[in-house]
Amino acid sequence: MAKGKADLKKITKQDEDYSRWYLDIVERAKLAEESGVRGCMIIRPEGFAIWEKMQQILDQMFKDTGHANAYFPLFIPVSYFSKEAKHVSGFAKECAVVTHHRLTTKKSGEITVDPDAELGEPLVVRPTSETIIWSAYRKWIQSYRDLPILLNQWVNVCRWELRTRPFLRTTEFLWQEGHTAHATADEAEAESRQMLEVYKTFVEEYLAIPVLAGRKTENEKFPGAEHTYTIETMTQDKRAIQVATSHNLGTTFSKAFDVTYLSAEGTQEYPFATSWGITTRLIGTLVMVHSDNQGFVCPPRIAPLQVIGVPIYRKDAEKEEVLARFQELQENFKILNIFSFKVDTRENLNPGFKFNDWELKGIPLRLEIGPRDLKQGKAVLVRRDTGEKVIVEQSDLVSKIPTLLHEIQSSLFQKAQEFQAQNTYSVSSYEEFKVSIEKNLGFYLAYFDGSPEDEEVIQEETKATGRCIPLTEESETGKCFYTGRETRNKVIFARAY
Amino acid sequence: MAKGKADLKKITKQDEDYSRWYLDIVERAKLAEESGVRGCMIIRPEGFAIWEKMQQILDQMFKDTGHANAYFPLFIPVSYFSKEAKHVSGFAKECAVVTHHRLTTKKSGEITVDPDAELGEPLVVRPTSETIIWSAYRKWIQSYRDLPILLNQWVNVCRWELRTRPFLRTTEFLWQEGHTAHATADEAEAESRQMLEVYKTFVEEYLAIPVLAGRKTENEKFPGAEHTYTIETMTQDKRAIQVATSHNLGTTFSKAFDVTYLSAEGTQEYPFATSWGITTRLIGTLVMVHSDNQGFVCPPRIAPLQVIGVPIYRKDAEKEEVLARFQELQENFKILNIFSFKVDTRENLNPGFKFNDWELKGIPLRLEIGPRDLKQGKAVLVRRDTGEKVIVEQSDLVSKIPTLLHEIQSSLFQKAQEFQAQNTYSVSSYEEFKVSIEKNLGFYLAYFDGSPEDEEVIQEETKATGRCIPLTEESETGKCFYTGRETRNKVIFARAY
Repeated sequence: MAKGKADLKKITKQDEDYSRWYLDIVERAKLAEESGVRGCMIIRPEGFAIWEKMQQILDQMFKDTGHANAYFPLFIPVSYFSKEAKHVSGFAKECAVVTHHRLTTKKSGEITVDPDAELGEPLVVRPTSETIIWSAYRKWIQSYRDLPILLNQWVNVCRWELRTRPFLRTTEFLWQEGHTAHATADEAEAESRQMLEVYKTFVEEYLAIPVLAGRKTENEKFPGAEHTYTIETMTQDKRAIQVATSHNLGTTFSKAFDVTYLSAEGTQEYPFATSWGITTRLIGTLVMVHSDNQGFVCPPRIAPLQVIGVPIYRKDAEKEEVLARFQELQENFKILNIFSFKVDTRENLNPGFKFNDWELKGIPLRLEIGPRDLKQGKAVLVRRDTGEKVIVEQSDLVSKIPTLLHEIQSSLFQKAQEFQAQNTYSVSSYEEFKVSIEKNLGFYLAYFDGSPEDEEVIQEETKATGRCIPLTEESETGKCFYTGRETRNKVIFARAY
Repeated sequence: MAKGKADLKKITKQDEDYSRWYLDIVERAKLAEESGVRGCMIIRPEGFAIWEKMQQILDQMFKDTGHANAYFPLFIPVSYFSKEAKHVSGFAKECAVVTHHRLTTKKSGEITVDPDAELGEPLVVRPTSETIIWSAYRKWIQSYRDLPILLNQWVNVCRWELRTRPFLRTTEFLWQEGHTAHATADEAEAESRQMLEVYKTFVEEYLAIPVLAGRKTENEKFPGAEHTYTIETMTQDKRAIQVATSHNLGTTFSKAFDVTYLSAEGTQEYPFATSWGITTRLIGTLVMVHSDNQGFVCPPRIAPLQVIGVPIYRKDAEKEEVLARFQELQENFKILNIFSFKVDTRENLNPGFKFNDWELKGIPLRLEIGPRDLKQGKAVLVRRDTGEKVIVEQSDLVSKIPTLLHEIQSSLFQKAQEFQAQNTYSVSSYEEFKVSIEKNLGFYLAYFDGSPEDEEVIQEETKATGRCIPLTEESETGKCFYTGRETRNKVIFARAY
């Protein structure tokens, strides 16, 4: 691969080393970088602009479904986890714990933790906020009139991960977490399904990422949940990636935090909970699903910048004319305000360099105009996804650009969907599955009614986990590929990120 | 004050106990509440909606001045503070320190910190992000072509405060922090002044809070800053409150983190830094400046909900007609989209209860329509700030409401401005000041050229601090009220939150 200094800046090819390719894209497209703080990344402006756009769109979808935002503390007293532990087994204990509240200066001038400033009760940096939120809901929920409560927060959370990978698995990450309280089990179930549907719509329509919606198996569901719903997609190396989850938590947290309400009938009842979240992992998923050996590929509907103009010229006189034309176009486009546009006016860089640079950064469409185009009233549009060049009349740009952006969006979705379909298999025996997944990664659909212990054996033997019980699969019965028992459950197995 | 159970829900009067009044407003208007976690508050949906609106407006102002958002880690290795300490003395050391990365379950079932999971290097929960950001800028800044860097982040930060008060001083709070890097000292100075101006415009035009813009005295400036600029306002109990700060940091952080760039002339130079921030304290400031004994008062331009409709009826037939009319109005208003509007359709609550409830929550304008109004084609508009009732033709609502909202906005600003002017004094001798501030709190403008030590004596003796050297004061010379020396510096002294 590395042929010398000239190649230093090349992106590793996907088929040479997929993991390295992923890291190269994240770094070279300036989406994120290592911070020097273990497992924590810096989200660079290019990456953060995508997160901001995701937030805007999703936040509106949450508000349209009746939710409001709030903010709960970052720190959770460790005693809250003891309360949770009585009702929930198996929640993750790898998290950041604050034990002191002061620094001090040593004689050497070095700064260190002040040993005299130990906290009475250690505080955990929130890995998720069910405990702190349900401890507040205890005060807020008295009567059935206080229900439902439909809240969300956009925050940072922290889980102490051993092996990290930017966006996909980091110690600190950004997410939103919805936490709702309902009077009935049915309402909570409907809420958790509704939010899964919101996520599916968002991810498919804006990120052009086709997903399988399903329910998690016993082994994979959130500790304390009645049901965990998930949407999963397939990366270009044919692994599964969990895109979002929505949990029906039943009365687990109302019981753990002793929250009851007076019903209309005058009885004391436990309210029902849901929680649901989506994280900065979405940005990594965009890379994993759409990007290529030239760099990042960003679907137009989520791209902060949709069209980049690159002026082509050699002589000063040409430069002046071409830039003047771009200036005019920019003003026109700004008034129309139907796509985002910028002109690359950087000096001392040749067009070839600029082409590569914007391809690397994943801008969906490039607009080139040179002196000859000027004379002919033409312009060149280049699609980032296919590299296809389209020569158009400049007067047609305002209609052609939105059409092309739309085509790119559809085409990215379709390509990913076909790839997923081509790499999804049905298997009826565990032996067949073991052999097949070694040869071809992908999604394997099988009848399955095994226990959590069975799932663990399967994971040990095949490195595959039950990703979900698809919601769309019809409920005919069949023979479990592992136990041989008749079952209605069909499960997708895959190796996952 | 407390006359029995019926009074339990009354708001403490401002002149009885201003501090208690403040806490009552925050709690009863549901802006925030104690979380049970020491010094950390829960920002409730009503309070958070104001913060969201502040974010939207300010974020656009930051982008219009060329800034982009990014995200840097929450955790800062303690060694970064040692680097800072070599260049900056006196930075605050009261902060949350993470020392462990795992919980464990005791035999009793209780959850506790795992003593085997101690971190090699403790991590500090960011109190502010200069150190972590400048350690990244070291990689990003190589050449003059990489400058300026104009970044901002919207995040949570943590400072271990002994005495806390919701919004005004909490252990964890939300803010934005801008961090910029420039090639020249002049550019950094211009940036810090520009951002102060952005804050002043935002606070005056949207929050209707008149501010004094000035430079901090030596004693009050940010550790490591060349200059700290501030905007300060006056609360209704005549204290100063710092609303926002903008720092020209010179080369302090580029030197501490060894950041240099290759200039156009081929020399290695240190870049110049600024940082600037505004926090959730703004919400507390709104309470402190505008609110009254009836509850919260929210200026229309920052109010998430601007007009609340309260239907008036007794009989079912009346109810139907009145609600139908409100429904029509709501649809009209929605199409026009020039103010936000909701109808209080809650059952079993009388109009009087609803009036009080929305006054408590600070909604700028109330729209009442009853059966008699229906017949006459009239409606009643009630201003939250003055209680004034305006009877208008229903057909005039769409013009009258925006006019009234505008009047409320102006009037709140003017009232606060007059109050500030009335309680601002000039003093020429320290003795006069000591006597006067005991009798009347307020802003005291005096010639001052004392040392930081002098400022500390003044603070001990009068509980007042130098709030700022106003930028607008003319630079005639006068005699320092403390040292008697001739100086051009005029300083505002006040007791402050």
